[in-house]
Amino acid sequence: MSDALLQTLREVVGAAQVLTDGDLSAYELDWRRRWRGRALAVVRPGSSAEVAAVVRACAAAGAAIVPQGGNTGLVGGGVPDNSGRQVLLSLQRLNRIRTIDAANLTLTAEAGCVLQAVQEAAAAQGLLFPLSLAAEGSCTIGGNLAANAGGTQVLRFGNARELCLGLEVVTATGEVWDGLSGLRKDNTGYDLRDLFVGSEGTLGIITAATLKLFPQPAAVTTALAACQSLDDCVALLNLARTRLGAGLTGFEVMGRFALELVAKHFPALPRPLPGAPWTVLLEQSDTDGEAAAQERFEALLGAALEDGIVGDAAVAANLSQSHAMWHLRESIPLAQAEEGLNIKHDIALPVSAIPRFCAATDAALAAAIPGVRLVCFGHLGDGNLHYNVQAPAGQDAKAFLAEREPAVNRIVYDAVMACGGSISAEHGIGQLKREELAERKSPVALAMMRAIKRALDPQNLLNPGRVL
Amino acid sequence: MSDALLQTLREVVGAAQVLTDGDLSAYELDWRRRWRGRALAVVRPGSSAEVAAVVRACAAAGAAIVPQGGNTGLVGGGVPDNSGRQVLLSLQRLNRIRTIDAANLTLTAEAGCVLQAVQEAAAAQGLLFPLSLAAEGSCTIGGNLAANAGGTQVLRFGNARELCLGLEVVTATGEVWDGLSGLRKDNTGYDLRDLFVGSEGTLGIITAATLKLFPQPAAVTTALAACQSLDDCVALLNLARTRLGAGLTGFEVMGRFALELVAKHFPALPRPLPGAPWTVLLEQSDTDGEAAAQERFEALLGAALEDGIVGDAAVAANLSQSHAMWHLRESIPLAQAEEGLNIKHDIALPVSAIPRFCAATDAALAAAIPGVRLVCFGHLGDGNLHYNVQAPAGQDAKAFLAEREPAVNRIVYDAVMACGGSISAEHGIGQLKREELAERKSPVALAMMRAIKRALDPQNLLNPGRVL
Repeated sequence: MSDALLQTLREVVGAAQVLTDGDLSAYELDWRRRWRGRALAVVRPGSSAEVAAVVRACAAAGAAIVPQGGNTGLVGGGVPDNSGRQVLLSLQRLNRIRTIDAANLTLTAEAGCVLQAVQEAAAAQGLLFPLSLAAEGSCTIGGNLAANAGGTQVLRFGNARELCLGLEVVTATGEVWDGLSGLRKDNTGYDLRDLFVGSEGTLGIITAATLKLFPQPAAVTTALAACQSLDDCVALLNLARTRLGAGLTGFEVMGRFALELVAKHFPALPRPLPGAPWTVLLEQSDTDGEAAAQERFEALLGAALEDGIVGDAAVAANLSQSHAMWHLRESIPLAQAEEGLNIKHDIALPVSAIPRFCAATDAALAAAIPGVRLVCFGHLGDGNLHYNVQAPAGQDAKAFLAEREPAVNRIVYDAVMACGGSISAEHGIGQLKREELAERKSPVALAMMRAIKRALDPQNLLNPGRVL
Repeated sequence: MSDALLQTLREVVGAAQVLTDGDLSAYELDWRRRWRGRALAVVRPGSSAEVAAVVRACAAAGAAIVPQGGNTGLVGGGVPDNSGRQVLLSLQRLNRIRTIDAANLTLTAEAGCVLQAVQEAAAAQGLLFPLSLAAEGSCTIGGNLAANAGGTQVLRFGNARELCLGLEVVTATGEVWDGLSGLRKDNTGYDLRDLFVGSEGTLGIITAATLKLFPQPAAVTTALAACQSLDDCVALLNLARTRLGAGLTGFEVMGRFALELVAKHFPALPRPLPGAPWTVLLEQSDTDGEAAAQERFEALLGAALEDGIVGDAAVAANLSQSHAMWHLRESIPLAQAEEGLNIKHDIALPVSAIPRFCAATDAALAAAIPGVRLVCFGHLGDGNLHYNVQAPAGQDAKAFLAEREPAVNRIVYDAVMACGGSISAEHGIGQLKREELAERKSPVALAMMRAIKRALDPQNLLNPGRVL
């Protein structure tokens, strides 16, 4: 049976694109090395028609399919299980930018295009594709859409979902749905696009997408502000939104301990506002130019200093100072990795609930685990925190994880749910949070999700055991 | 059977809220008086729990349900059929603003809240709910979401879909799904919210929604520009997007004949730029204030005049001039109604395709119907045209419709599809365009839509015969 399927797959995509031997870690092991699976084969189709033919062959053989883009997911959604019977379908060879329509501000890219390649194709036309995240040099746009990726500019431009106007999808029956569309408005039936976006490859395989572009701003500038409390950070956010409107394109918060880890592991990095309980990074994109943007920042931060919301502030005077500020923010994940494994939470909350969530949860964790250390940072403007729990100083990180993870998750996720929050803001469910989802999501919603899964993938061929 | 159901419904919502006698035109006749149905009863529940109980009663009796908000839809999606067996479920009594969370920029409203009441509740907190359309004094937010309404600010803020963060929905089995959420990011499973938004009451009944709010801009200003061609209008749009960024909140285009009808039927209205083939209305919302906005408009229009894109322009000097400019735009639908019925098309196109679409379709219609008059106007910034076909001067409008509608629709919709456009940009499908949809939508998409409908409403109880 497997041999017959492999033979068919070789006929469909060519023998060179059906990998069964040698080291397939690049496909079978996720990049954080948390999940290793074993596939029947890694199949690398070169076109949407070939993807459809692969799906038809697998459907006929009853073989499950795990779609994969750049293999940079954080929840184990793109690696096969250990059965050796799942087909890993890599989209990486579908990597053409099909069209750019500058007057319509749209770009159509195949699923395997690396995010950075999409950004660069837009920039070559003087346009902006604003999705931006740490893995952009290797993640693919198909994976970004399947996971509904977030990143640093969600405050202004939305998640991957909001940046997508149309999709091409191969269905579970191996048909190609051409839903590519450069339209801003289209009320002709159910919103299939948004059903596939964020479904993590369980409802269909995204093979191409039409994406929204924007004019490049005339200037992008950055500032740092030191706040005494999260209440002050939220007040600053609302002041910045009112004064800068859609010009506010980033609002990141960094807790003291997070920046202390950066100082410890990367001592050469400049740290403009040391010692503040909370440091906010603000980014402004401006159509008028650099000088106007800096002036607006200075007026905003002056008002915030006067109101007592901010204790100290620094506006980047040039691009290299701007980069240094972002570098600080981007060094937090690396610094915590240097410090040793921790228990990660990618959570979302109503912005207004963040101060009381942190007060209550910090206290509950400190009571349960004396000396516990919290690496708290994230996209405050989107209500998205990376709320990571590090072992007390001197304790072994691996042992801490093994012993404490379930209890810590319970404390954190109970508090998240009590505040009307989400246990996955931007990383998705995959296999990591599947059981947590089954336990915490509304049973009415789960029943509808299962009904939709059965309706669109009755054989349960597409990424089974993920999400649901 | 009917009597037993009516009795149950009276027990659920109270006898006074089950209407069966007297003039029920307010519910059974759409506001353009195009469709008149006859319901078994008009049922007016007062809470989500009552809505759920009504659905369970109807499901047990096998009675179809037609949900209705303000009854302002344009495609016959909210009026019952003529059978006298469908239950019209009016959401108008669910009209509470449940909560406003200013720091989170969210508002939770019940489905029956009139759009204007939502706008006013936001404004009372100094905040903006940007959905705005002609029927805002009587349409409801539930209907806006069920139809994914558009309106005049889509360019900046998106359709109703983009303004909604969470929903409460009564399912076809009479359960309440509490999907209300004030989160900007939530990747926990399939996007049920966007599946219900735009489904026109065929998948579930929206009973409440959490909506996005925005800070009020410091100033909103308006300008008019005269262009020789649609190519110039598109060039002006792209120049305005680059120079004003997200400050550009409106970009409406009005064809010469449309404004001639306004001049004919409302001669008292001032007309700042008479005689131009195309007049563009630009709206700018600014966080810096009135003076800065006017300066930016003058610089933009100065550059456009210099480039030869614009022949003449006028910037509103004050609020009353701004209102007069919008009044001109808003008078077009009224003026064409005065002129007599015409064949309406609510279409969307890639912005870049609009000039060639109009050139080709204008010519095809003129060849088919010598003397035909085109009322062309709409939201050019969203690629959304109201492309309405008026009888040649002196011909009877009713006879023209009766004779010509199918042929005109074929010419227009064939051209729309050839340009990658949509036959319904913002009004939806309802019963008006159901057959057109079945004919023109991708069979793969239709099959998925039908599978989803069966999965979520296996008895076909919710608004049967609409959309699909």
